[in-house]
Parts: sequence; C-alpha cells; structure tokens
Amino acid sequence: MYGEKSRIIYDTLIKNHLVGSEGSIKIELLGVSYLVNDKSSIGNLIQEWLGAWMLKNNIYFRAPDNSQEFPDFYLDNSEIKNLLEVKCFDFSASPNFDIANFDAYIRSLLTKPYRLDADYLIFGYTLHNGILKIENIWLKKIWEITCPSEQFSLRVQVKQGKIFNIRPYNFKNMSQGYKPFGSKREFIFALRNTLNEYKFRNISGDSWYKSFLSVGN
Amino acid sequence: MYGEKSRIIYDTLIKNHLVGSEGSIKIELLGVSYLVNDKSSIGNLIQEWLGAWMLKNNIYFRAPDNSQEFPDFYLDNSEIKNLLEVKCFDFSASPNFDIANFDAYIRSLLTKPYRLDADYLIFGYTLHNGILKIENIWLKKIWEITCPSEQFSLRVQVKQGKIFNIRPYNFKNMSQGYKPFGSKREFIFALRNTLNEYKFRNISGDSWYKSFLSVGN
Repeated sequence: MYGEKSRIIYDTLIKNHLVGSEGSIKIELLGVSYLVNDKSSIGNLIQEWLGAWMLKNNIYFRAPDNSQEFPDFYLDNSEIKNLLEVKCFDFSASPNFDIANFDAYIRSLLTKPYRLDADYLIFGYTLHNGILKIENIWLKKIWEITCPSEQFSLRVQVKQGKIFNIRPYNFKNMSQGYKPFGSKREFIFALRNTLNEYKFRNISGDSWYKSFLSVGN
Repeated sequence: MYGEKSRIIYDTLIKNHLVGSEGSIKIELLGVSYLVNDKSSIGNLIQEWLGAWMLKNNIYFRAPDNSQEFPDFYLDNSEIKNLLEVKCFDFSASPNFDIANFDAYIRSLLTKPYRLDADYLIFGYTLHNGILKIENIWLKKIWEITCPSEQFSLRVQVKQGKIFNIRPYNFKNMSQGYKPFGSKREFIFALRNTLNEYKFRNISGDSWYKSFLSVGN
C-alpha cells in the first residue's frame, strides 16, 4: 500500500534506531548559545533534518521550489507517485497537526487526484530542556489518519461554523469512538459527504464528486 | 516615544554589535548535524534566542503562558506598558511579515487599547549556506511601520476581497509613494476608515471608533 521509496525511508529510520534517539536544536548568535525549547518550529526543522539525513544516506529526493507546496518531498523523478508528506506532533499530547486546508485539498484533487496516494511520514517527538526525543514514527495513508466526527463526515477544524483544516484521528492511541476510514474510497466519500453537509460550501459534494470522477478516477 | 525597557534592549544590542554579526542554527539527530537553511522557522528562533540573550544580560522579561498571544515579551511587572513585539524578515526582500490579524487587532483594541503603545523590535536577517546574519535592527511603533494603500486606508493583506493581516510599510528602504502614519492618532483613523471601506466588515468603522473612545481613549 505504501510507496516503495517511503517504505525504504521508514525501514531505514527504524533500523537506525530513530525511535528513542535524542537530539537537539541549537541557535548561536552574539556569544549566546541556546538549546531551542519552543515547539513552534520543530515540525519545519525535523523536515529539514530529514532532507539532510536522506542526503547522507544516499536516498534520492527533491523538494518543490516553493516549500509551502504539496508534497514535502518527491522521492523519484515522477511528480505523481512516491510523494512524501512529513508531519510532526508533540507526543505528550494527541496528534493535532493540520493535515491540509479542507478547501484547498478538495480543489486540488480535481487536478491532482494522485495526491490521495501520498505517503505520510509522521514523527511524534518530545522536547524537554532542549532535548528533542523522537518517541515514535509512523508511515500512513491519509485515510488511516482521518476519521468522521460528530459534526461532519470528516473530522475537521471548525471556527465560527467555517471549516478550516482537516484534522487527524488519534492514531497515537488508536482511540475508540470514531475510527479511521477503511479505504481511500471511504475517505473520498467522507469528503463528498462533508461538502454536502457544509452550509458554507461553494460547491455541492455531489457535483464535486462528479467532477472528481470525470478526471479519470 | 519608545518604552524605556525596549530602548535598553535595542541600545545594548547595537552596542554589542548585533548588526553585522553572524550566527547559526544547528539541528543534530541520529548522527546527522545540519545547519538550518530554511527561512520558515527563523522568526520563532530569533525570538527564542532574544529571551536567552536577555537572561544572559540580566534584562528582566517574561512571556505570556501561550506563546501565540500578544505580546511576545512583558518587560516589567505591568501588563499594560513596556510590551515588546518581535518581528523578523528576510533582509534580501522587503519586510512582509504579518503585523497582526486585522480583525483580531481591531477587536483587541476595545479591551486592550494599550496594545497601540507596544514597541516593535524588528530583525532583518539573511540566511545563506547555514550562516544567519543580522543585517539591521529597528525599534518602531506600529504607526511607523504601517501606511495607507491604494485599496484601503491601511495597507493590509487581501485575499478574495477579504482582509487578513496588517502588512508593513517598507521601512527598510523608506519607500516612496504611500508613507507611514505620522502619529498613533493617524493610525487609529486608518483603522476606522478601513473598517468603513471594507464591505465584509462585521461592524462599521464609526461604531468601532465610538466603542474605542468609550473605553477611555
């Protein structure tokens, strides 16, 4: 199910004992050397570290020109397969990272349906007294880290009735209650149904789904 | 005009030759030691470094419990004066950081009008091959780093007609064209007028300004 290249990365990280290993982030300027202890930058920094680690381990990758774009890494010459997204979360809490902006994701699937097949490499870390510890890593498909919620067919971040981001299922604890989707197909249906349920939608779920099918899915 | 505590910080940084000095940010994990070269985390990291630098230089400060909150640093026991905001931008381009979310800023002034008097300590940096260089620093009031624009009385980031963030005047080059406001009063009027000009407003500028005056300004 997972891309062969992502699988190699995940397996090599596990074999090299990344889980349980400790590191640090140090900023030096004007004679002050400081171990970073604020979590707001950790996700970006782990992603950048992963690039350096792949380079050292002779694993081919390239990143889009704009680092805000999807995906975080291309793992071969193709732009439609072996796509890797990197996500990080503070392991002392539940995973609560933004998987993607809901509107942008829905729209992007009409031109880039292969986005559904991207692999997610997820780092659960802790940061105490400047020690960054990798507590666990996961390789996942999007439908394995998403689930329904009480309000919508897909768990999303809602502010003043408006949907912002797609938010994860608690795969860390494999929490009871709403369970993750069983397949890509179920996840796509949840996108369609959420659009149908959503009063601020620009497009109905049914017409989005029709467009989605028409681009060859 | 600037707070006495911010002034000490700015003067000490200048005296210690921060401008022109070089530093680095290094992440170490699993035997890979890497000098960070991606700009997305630099703002957060410089802010954290500043805390460490103040500690080393015996300058009193404390941060709000939630690092997302205003201000970045309290510089004395008061919660209404000697407030410091830290902003950073890539000196190879024009300043384009978010000064504040427009809606939230407008709303916050009704309960925290002293926010208008916060000092802004601004770092212009470059980052090449893992070398972080501080090219310049500024101490500013909000009305000195904001200006009108063609579309609104205040320069703001607009997406699909909606106002998101307050965006800076190019104080790096002191650019021609729209100039920064001359006083706090002019800036407040620009907030009021922008609300009046804005079709998605929740509140008219005039009624916002009336509420603002009624809280004792």
